[in-house]
This record gives sequence, C-alpha cells and structure tokens, in this order.
Amino acid sequence: MQKKLDLLGVQNLYLPMLIPMSFFEREKDHVEGFSPELAVVTVGGWKELEEPLAIRPTSELLFCDFFKNKLQSYRDLPLLYNQWVSVLRWEKRTRPFLRTAEFHWQEGHTLHETRDDAEKFALDIHYQVYMETIRELLAIDGIAGKKSQSEKFAGADTTYTFEPMMSNGWALQICTSHLLGQGFMEGFDVSFQNREGKLAHPWYTSWGLSTRSIGGVISSHSDDKGLIIPPKMSEYLATILPIYGKENAEKVNAYVRDLAHDLAGWDTEVPVQGEYFRAIVGEKGKVLIDFRDARLGEKIGDWEQSGYPVRIECWERDIEGTKCVIASRISGEKVTVDRKEMIGVVLDMHTRWQNILLENSRTRLHENIVACSSIEEVGHAIEAGKFAIYEWDQNPEFEKEIKEKFKATTRCIPFEGQFTDHLLTIKDPKNVRVIIARNF
Amino acid sequence: MQKKLDLLGVQNLYLPMLIPMSFFEREKDHVEGFSPELAVVTVGGWKELEEPLAIRPTSELLFCDFFKNKLQSYRDLPLLYNQWVSVLRWEKRTRPFLRTAEFHWQEGHTLHETRDDAEKFALDIHYQVYMETIRELLAIDGIAGKKSQSEKFAGADTTYTFEPMMSNGWALQICTSHLLGQGFMEGFDVSFQNREGKLAHPWYTSWGLSTRSIGGVISSHSDDKGLIIPPKMSEYLATILPIYGKENAEKVNAYVRDLAHDLAGWDTEVPVQGEYFRAIVGEKGKVLIDFRDARLGEKIGDWEQSGYPVRIECWERDIEGTKCVIASRISGEKVTVDRKEMIGVVLDMHTRWQNILLENSRTRLHENIVACSSIEEVGHAIEAGKFAIYEWDQNPEFEKEIKEKFKATTRCIPFEGQFTDHLLTIKDPKNVRVIIARNF
Repeated sequence: MQKKLDLLGVQNLYLPMLIPMSFFEREKDHVEGFSPELAVVTVGGWKELEEPLAIRPTSELLFCDFFKNKLQSYRDLPLLYNQWVSVLRWEKRTRPFLRTAEFHWQEGHTLHETRDDAEKFALDIHYQVYMETIRELLAIDGIAGKKSQSEKFAGADTTYTFEPMMSNGWALQICTSHLLGQGFMEGFDVSFQNREGKLAHPWYTSWGLSTRSIGGVISSHSDDKGLIIPPKMSEYLATILPIYGKENAEKVNAYVRDLAHDLAGWDTEVPVQGEYFRAIVGEKGKVLIDFRDARLGEKIGDWEQSGYPVRIECWERDIEGTKCVIASRISGEKVTVDRKEMIGVVLDMHTRWQNILLENSRTRLHENIVACSSIEEVGHAIEAGKFAIYEWDQNPEFEKEIKEKFKATTRCIPFEGQFTDHLLTIKDPKNVRVIIARNF
Repeated sequence: MQKKLDLLGVQNLYLPMLIPMSFFEREKDHVEGFSPELAVVTVGGWKELEEPLAIRPTSELLFCDFFKNKLQSYRDLPLLYNQWVSVLRWEKRTRPFLRTAEFHWQEGHTLHETRDDAEKFALDIHYQVYMETIRELLAIDGIAGKKSQSEKFAGADTTYTFEPMMSNGWALQICTSHLLGQGFMEGFDVSFQNREGKLAHPWYTSWGLSTRSIGGVISSHSDDKGLIIPPKMSEYLATILPIYGKENAEKVNAYVRDLAHDLAGWDTEVPVQGEYFRAIVGEKGKVLIDFRDARLGEKIGDWEQSGYPVRIECWERDIEGTKCVIASRISGEKVTVDRKEMIGVVLDMHTRWQNILLENSRTRLHENIVACSSIEEVGHAIEAGKFAIYEWDQNPEFEKEIKEKFKATTRCIPFEGQFTDHLLTIKDPKNVRVIIARNF
C-alpha cells in the first residue's frame, strides 16, 4: 500500500498524538461527532494542565493547524500527506480488530486547488490504493459507493466507502475516503492566494484504512478449523513439520532444514519464540520449522488454526525418495511431490488460493444481494443474512426505521457500473439505489 | 534495522498505548524514574475514570503483564519481541529530535532462561543491530560501554550505551540496551517451570533506539550551509535542476525528465507538494526534479540546506553534448560528465561520501578524547569541548561534582578493546576507565 501511495506522490509525515481541546471547537460537526469518544489528558508531570489535551481520535484538526502555516499560494498545491499511526476512540463495546478503543491506521490528508481536484484525488485513493489493496492482498471484494448524509464522516461533504460482506452476511465498512470540502478550512482559517491573486480556501480530503481490515480478513476467510491467511499476507511461505521415530530424528531434521533452505532461498536460521521453533529467513521469504516433540495431530491442528496457507510434512520414509507432502490449509488437499518440484508446487498453491479466496468473497456477495421493493422485503433479506438493495428517496426517517426494526443501516449508495446494478431499476429518477445490511 | 532484527528471530507485536497507573507501583526503581514524567488520562468518554491511565513513557510494565500470561515452561524461552511506537515523557525543556515529549522509537523486550543468555542477547542487539546500523546507515561512530550505576535505566541491572561525539564535542546517548535482570519479573510475578521442574524467574532485557538518532545525524554531519544527509539515508538519489531561458524550457525539461528516468530506473512521474516539484519513482530509487521558476542561486541554496547528497544541474548548452553537471552537497565539488556516465558517477559519489562521513565522525572522536589524571584536567577537557577519559573508583560523589562544576556527566565505562584504551592505563585494578562529557 505504501508503494501505491508513493506512486500518487503522497509523502509521509508525523503529527503529535495530543490535540489541544480548544481545537475541537472550530468545526461544529466534527466536535459533535468526536467529543463523546475522547480520552483526555488532564495531568502532565504531576501538574494539572491549563488546557487539557485529547489523544487523537483522528487528526483533521492537527492537519488543519499544520496546513495553515504551510500553505501560501496556489503554487503550493496539491499538498499530499499521510501518517501511519494509532488513534483512540473511547468505545463502550469493543470487538477485537473490528472496534477497539485504540486502533492502527494510516490517515491521509490532502489539500487541492479546486473541488474537482479534491474529489478526483479522494476517488483515486479509493480505487487505486484501497480497493486494489483490499482485493489483491486481502482477497476481499465489496461494494463501492457513497455514504448517506447521516452515515458520513463528521465534518465531511461526501464519504466514499467500500463494503464487503462478512461470512455471516453482515457488512463491514473496511475503508473510507472523504471529500471534506471547505468547512475545516474556514474553521482554521486556512487559505491561499489563487491564480487571480485573491484569497481562497483550498478543498480538503482525508482517508483512512485501519486494522479493522484484519478483522475483515478473519471474518471473511476463516472456517471451522480456524484462521485462513490469504497467501500474499502470510508471514511464512510454508510451515514444515518433521515426523520421525526417535532413532531417526537427526536425519529427518537435517532433511527439513535442507527443504526450508531451498524454499526460503537462503541459509540463515533464527529462533522463534521458544526452543522448538526455527525460522529459515531468505531472499524468497521465511519458512517456519516446528521441531516440537508433540503428537502429529496436535501440531497439524495448531497450524490449521494459525491459518498459514501451506504446510509441508516430512516423514522418515520421504527422505530416501527425496519426497515431501504438501498440504493446503484452505482446501485440505495433500500431494506427495519430489523435492525438486516442491518450490513450484508451493508457489502455485499460493497463487491459486489467493485467487480462489477473492473469487469466493465475490461469489458470496453476488449470491446474497436481494432487490427489495418494500420495507418488509428489506426486513426479510436482513433477517436471512443478506444485503438488501432498495430504491430510496434519501429520507433519513427510513434509516431510523430500519435501525429500530431490523438493526440494519444504509451501507452505501453504490457507484454506477457495479455488478449490483442489474438487480434494481430505479423508478423515480430523484431516488437512489441504496445497500442495506447489518453492521458487522 | 528491521532485517537485522529478523535475523535475530525477534517478532514484532503491538501493546496498548495506555498503562493502568497501578502497574507503576510494582517496580520500585521504575516508578521513581518515570512517575514525574507521566501524561495521565483521567477522563474517557466524558466520564472520570476509576483508575487513571498513563500514556506509555516506555512499555516494560505492559510487557511484564503480557509475559505473565504467555510464559509457562523453559520450552517457551527465549521470548523475543519488538514494537515500533511513539512514547511520551513530560519534559520541561524540549529540543527538536533530541528531547521531545513524544518521540518515536522501537522498543525490544525479551525473556531468557539464564542471566548469560540475557546478557548475550542484549549485547547482540547492541553490536549487531544498533552499532552496525548507526555506523553503516547513519555514518556515525561512537564509544560503546556500560552506564554507571547512577546513569543506568530505572529498574535495570546493567545499561549498555553507544556514545558518539557531536560536532561541538558533546556526547549523545544514541541508543541503549538493558539487562533488566529479575526485578520486574518479581514485581509482576512472571515465572516459568525450569528444567528441574521448579518455578524460576526468567531474565529480562529491553532495548531502544529512537528518533533522537535523527538529531544525532543532524548534529554530527551538518555544516554552515545546512543539513547533510548520509547518502544511504537519503530519500532521493539526486535532485535535478533544469536551467534555461524561456524559449528552451520545453527542450530542457524533457531532457531532465529523461535523465531522471535513467537514474531512477523507471518511468513513473508523481507530483510532490505543489505544482513545481516532480518525483520520478523507479526500481533504483527516487529522483526529484525542481521545475520552479526561481533564481538558480535560490534553488541551489534550498537544496544545499535540505542536505540531499547529490544535485544534478542541466543547462541548455548541456543538451547538445548530452552532458550534465553533478555536484556533491558535501564536498561542493562539481563535475561535468557525459550522460552515459551519470549513473556511475552519482552512485560512486554516494558510496564515497557515505564512507567519508563515517570516517570524519571517527576522526573527530579519535582526536578529541583526552586522558585526564585529575578532576582539574577533566574540567579543562570538558571546557575545550572534548571527551575526558579518567580512572574512576565508581564513587557517585564524583558524578555530582563534575555535574556541578562542569555540567558534565559520566557517559560510559567503555568496553575493552576499543581504540580509546591506549589513552589511559588503569593504576588500581579496582577502578575503571570512564568517559566524561557534556550531554548533548
């Protein structure tokens, strides 16, 4: 993802973790949205602070303060910045990775000369950085669109979102990109001399993708045996299990080390958390060897739960034939191959399963969107663990009703041209299509 | 540095930013050392918290809590973890990069079965990760050794440090690695079943290198023109300045783009902060082109101040001869070369100046350590902006005296075998050599 950001000209920086509380008063919607979620530092170095400081829940206010001193002329635009940080929002109910008080993300903040420039950039980030990363690396597909007025980011003109379907049929807001407009710029008095020599406010975008995406991976791909890690995200190319009676331990262990060195492409062996695990680290990647003196079934169970895509088993009998057994975590298939073929088979398994996981995610979405023409039909779709697509007049009363009745929310007004469009033809051109689902 | 950590088997994780205040009571020295520097969250989600939370000043307490649940048997050891985070210490007087309230670092935390294992690992980190990175990447040399009892980390048995000399002759503690022993383990009741089947406390190490190292680079290498970035740390392989009269702008700009593409090894052009800067991003690195319509002297001055190691100038006249002018930021030397030779000359300049910067840092240290046999001689050395080396009985009263009289501190008790040893022969074998300097 960092490479994709590089290719759009975004530069990394870091702004402080603490925000003076007075900053929050400068943007009305933003303060309403975030004040209830703040963790506030009131004491520093044993002393009560004159002005309390909030731990950043997001950094628009700090970026505005930074931009004010940075921007002078239209020649300085665009300003394209990003930071990789953790932020904190005081959540009453937390769920690992999906909703945690502290979470990690990158947050991008950019200023542009015109509204069109800003909108284009927010969409470039959404399509070229986020959606490509989520599809190609996380192997998750979803529906791209705009958030409704009541679901958009506090202080934004428009919020773009990408909404995949988790394995229970609920929706996850996996990333957002905001056209913030000029509200923050007015609040912080950020302006520049335009091409006509007059003072003007720039147009502001911000965008973030967080560790919630890891929650998305877990909730999309896992099965009853445990986690499934998409091959491109896997720390290890393979985990290797030597299997032997006591008398042949040395011979089998030497053999698995050899295999691991071949696969990793180098010969550095390092300890990994305790005396029984060794990683072979090379230019092609890392391979983990499990030397534990445990039951084979237990070891296999552990690695299935951990979700690494490929497991290699080496039995005593394999050494003579220079064979090994390669098992796919995802399909469960096992093949016995010659040592010479091992690398090819492992890499092929990676490529194949990366594609299949994405295809599975796509198929789930395709097969579980229901076009609905009444609120009752919406309710049936939601109760059945599906996404509803519905013709909506954008009246927020409807959002209150589906929340109360079905615990569902509008997820997005999908962009044109996506595969969902054929499901629903809009009758009144003032209306929009909207996707409705439960929030994962 | 991450690759070096990988090769020692260290795994990255992340622990929370907030520490319950009660944790601080469990290690006496640690609470004394850090309590005065804490920023404390007392309000979360509009409510007064039952137990206040401190923003981590360092994370020993959280790692102890984590280890308690993680460790059971000697088979689980060693446990080798690292996190890349920011921490916060409420400082009264701050200096950019050198002493800031919030700062970035990596902090490593490891548990071992025996004291010897722990000591060896703390030293492996110190030599193979820190000193190699600081010398090879930051081009800074220093003196390696142990901190005195009064200068060691709050809660440590032994603190290892690396102390380079800044350009004014003062010392910078650029990284530390601690053998923490068993104190924290007792405070948090972290224990394991050892090989004899008995409960024992493991041995704990922690180690950190922070953004202070960037302060070290600035304060080691800069000159009157501004920053000097060691070539291996430079974001850009070169900055390119096209120089032309108005009628030939297009031709010269096309030519510099060509040169930049050659050097970066690829043809993607991205905007960089405003309409006049473009980066060419390729597989060999990034090159920045400065298309500003400004005076040549002003542009050169800006790039000298920014410290990128190589500047390429392209004049109208160079196009016909397919030449360009390559200037070294560090020596000021300028060479006119044929376009075909450009890449070789730039890379050679990088290698050469990386080595020279390290050599300069080493020479400064060599030439400015003074063997002293009285406290008066120590004072003269300090006042002259040098490091003093002195035979010391390890009485802390001496440290109070040099602090009051000369604003100097003991920096380290140097390891044997370093180049400083020839300067001072110890008379009383109970005594040690100590390095004394002002703290940068």
